[in-house]
Amino acid sequence: MKATQVRAWSRCGFVLLIALWAGCAGPQRQPRLVAVLTDYGQTDFYAGVLEGVMYRTFPQVRISTITHEVEPFNAAEGSYVLEQAAPAYPPGTVFVCIVDPGVGTQRRPVILETEEKKFFVGPDNGLLTGVLSSGKPVAAYEIFGAVPSAPGWSSTFHGRDIFGPVAAQLASGKAPSELGTPIEWSSLIRLDIPEPVVEGNVLTGAIRHVDRYGNLISNISAALADRAGLRLGRQVSVRIGDQTVSARVTSTYGDVPQGDWVVLKNAEGAVEVARNMADAAQTVQARAGAVLVIGP
Amino acid sequence: MKATQVRAWSRCGFVLLIALWAGCAGPQRQPRLVAVLTDYGQTDFYAGVLEGVMYRTFPQVRISTITHEVEPFNAAEGSYVLEQAAPAYPPGTVFVCIVDPGVGTQRRPVILETEEKKFFVGPDNGLLTGVLSSGKPVAAYEIFGAVPSAPGWSSTFHGRDIFGPVAAQLASGKAPSELGTPIEWSSLIRLDIPEPVVEGNVLTGAIRHVDRYGNLISNISAALADRAGLRLGRQVSVRIGDQTVSARVTSTYGDVPQGDWVVLKNAEGAVEVARNMADAAQTVQARAGAVLVIGP
Amino acid sequence: MKATQVRAWSRCGFVLLIALWAGCAGPQRQPRLVAVLTDYGQTDFYAGVLEGVMYRTFPQVRISTITHEVEPFNAAEGSYVLEQAAPAYPPGTVFVCIVDPGVGTQRRPVILETEEKKFFVGPDNGLLTGVLSSGKPVAAYEIFGAVPSAPGWSSTFHGRDIFGPVAAQLASGKAPSELGTPIEWSSLIRLDIPEPVVEGNVLTGAIRHVDRYGNLISNISAALADRAGLRLGRQVSVRIGDQTVSARVTSTYGDVPQGDWVVLKNAEGAVEVARNMADAAQTVQARAGAVLVIGP
Repeated sequence: MKATQVRAWSRCGFVLLIALWAGCAGPQRQPRLVAVLTDYGQTDFYAGVLEGVMYRTFPQVRISTITHEVEPFNAAEGSYVLEQAAPAYPPGTVFVCIVDPGVGTQRRPVILETEEKKFFVGPDNGLLTGVLSSGKPVAAYEIFGAVPSAPGWSSTFHGRDIFGPVAAQLASGKAPSELGTPIEWSSLIRLDIPEPVVEGNVLTGAIRHVDRYGNLISNISAALADRAGLRLGRQVSVRIGDQTVSARVTSTYGDVPQGDWVVLKNAEGAVEVARNMADAAQTVQARAGAVLVIGP
Repeated sequence: MKATQVRAWSRCGFVLLIALWAGCAGPQRQPRLVAVLTDYGQTDFYAGVLEGVMYRTFPQVRISTITHEVEPFNAAEGSYVLEQAAPAYPPGTVFVCIVDPGVGTQRRPVILETEEKKFFVGPDNGLLTGVLSSGKPVAAYEIFGAVPSAPGWSSTFHGRDIFGPVAAQLASGKAPSELGTPIEWSSLIRLDIPEPVVEGNVLTGAIRHVDRYGNLISNISAALADRAGLRLGRQVSVRIGDQTVSARVTSTYGDVPQGDWVVLKNAEGAVEVARNMADAAQTVQARAGAVLVIGP
Repeated sequence: MKATQVRAWSRCGFVLLIALWAGCAGPQRQPRLVAVLTDYGQTDFYAGVLEGVMYRTFPQVRISTITHEVEPFNAAEGSYVLEQAAPAYPPGTVFVCIVDPGVGTQRRPVILETEEKKFFVGPDNGLLTGVLSSGKPVAAYEIFGAVPSAPGWSSTFHGRDIFGPVAAQLASGKAPSELGTPIEWSSLIRLDIPEPVVEGNVLTGAIRHVDRYGNLISNISAALADRAGLRLGRQVSVRIGDQTVSARVTSTYGDVPQGDWVVLKNAEGAVEVARNMADAAQTVQARAGAVLVIGP
């Protein structure tokens, strides 16, 4: 064996090592992570089929469930939950978002890309409203009329036939431009989200979301609450629909006796009305959309 | 150092590289994926224990949840959901299937293997009926009376003591013949699934499944519906139990105004009766098993 | 090329191979597994944010959901489910445990370490009672007032800001002493769990947990039942609250006709009262905490 042969082998070995390292290190480079938000519920085969088809499309995919429990057909609720959950995930995460009463009709299947290289795959029906508002979108694509790995398109299950396979392909590193035609991201449909109003020290807003604990999350931002003089320790009156309660402005739920009402700036930067260890929504029969007035 | 030594090292390095590659590439070769379907619900420790014991048995296992929300003890519902979900998963997937009211009695714990190298692990109580019908079974095994990694058998939690460990071992690459005794797959118990009937242009079937949206999925195949002349655009009458509604034959839900009834061939190849953005099952108080008659 | 160069390359290659092997083999060495138990429910963004922040903190983390369905604020129920689920997971598993009505108040955020190198991360409010009793604790830590990867602390969402990031860092291999100050594990808060009593052949205990099937799991251990002479095949009377039923002592549910009552030693080593294929809890309107008396 000559020195040149040794050198050749060294070089070859080195290349192999690099290739190997790249292969092994792959998961570190990008998350290969798909986060799932749907209104599929958990009693049917829909959630399983969506996961199965993503594993089939890209075997190394990693799947995180945000929720399958969006209220059926409620794109506004889906948009809200998605907007709140998405920032927690690492850059590069792909989100597959399915609340899709118009499945199989003319509504566009799209990919939205944000500054952080997050990708949102779903129907263009307002479900991406929240992400469009706060997620710093940079590009959008209308998904092509054919997805190679899809088992054939249906008119009623685009999670299986379009959104799942596309999400898995994005997670595998495929560029969105390989999967769809560029469109203006500003052309995507946005739902009307009511804006809160301050008049003097009266804040008028709406319930944006009722959470599992019965806490009433409003559309009033912490910044707006500051402008209206909502200071820690103050006692305020809160009108929810046609009922009025007295609440204390606090940092957290446990700052008042059990059962008492609080108004606080929550971890997401919104004003929240709650009862300590009790269900505020049930108490006043409140639902998302109800008017909320906070005054002195 | 002599050329022979260099050559020896080269060879040794090469072998190491191959071994390494095999180690790293492992996950690509086979999915190591266990898909889970149970009636455990999600409020107890059962689902967690099942996952935990699989991670303990085979640390590299990857777990996908189809559902834990099969109605308690309802093997027929479990069979249906499993049959619909399984085809989406990649070849090599192991399914752990537990709806097991007879746990600890004489019913056999079994493994069913299909043409696609999918493995179904569960009790032989009819839960595998759907897979036996449409999954192309090729072999079956009765699980041996001892599973090395099981922490000791109980009479009430075979998910923990048998099915979970066996599924994880299959996912790790162990052959089913190492885990059970071959039996005839045709000996596995099948539930009676009612067959639909066509008389002229009247289709008589049954509701096979009510999904989260309240859609009524029937046991009538798309092919049978074609034979009965169920053409797109036709208006038909649908009798569900003792109620009759008028529905349009469409491609998808959104082809009629909100609240209207449709009859469509769904993504799974079955006839489905639904209301656009409304809950058909609730409207007519329909449940799985109810008779469904579609006529002119 | 000289022999020394060849030798140097060999050495270098060897080191690279070892490094590579370590990188690839990493997942085998320790599970990198976080098991999650919360009362977050599944309709909000909380569960998704918790997963997202763990993936962001440690991209290789693997997440297993025990449950998000602990009754809101019910630390006793959470403690019970956690105690039952934890033993199934492999050594090295990190548990993130969040039932935290006192979030943002003075209660301590802690890490509990057990003999098996399992780590439990959560609030010190009694949620770890079960693990403290049966999990062989060896050390505890109060989590430092700052977590590098946390996006800034809130007063209402410590899952996102403290517990999730800390759990992910433990899963990545960080030592608990890097994340908190050592404290006495015996200083952690324990809930009072009522003790069962034997008088002659009468067992008096309480319902510890009602599971999804309506089975009543008691606080009476199998060992205690043996002492009270609860033998297989005996017919006993069971008083649950103010109702009394007749039950047979069996190995499993299916040992009696459908609908009949059984008393059995369950897979977790506790006495359980159940009906075969029926919901015992619903039948007698029983809830956790109710008194249970088993006599001749």
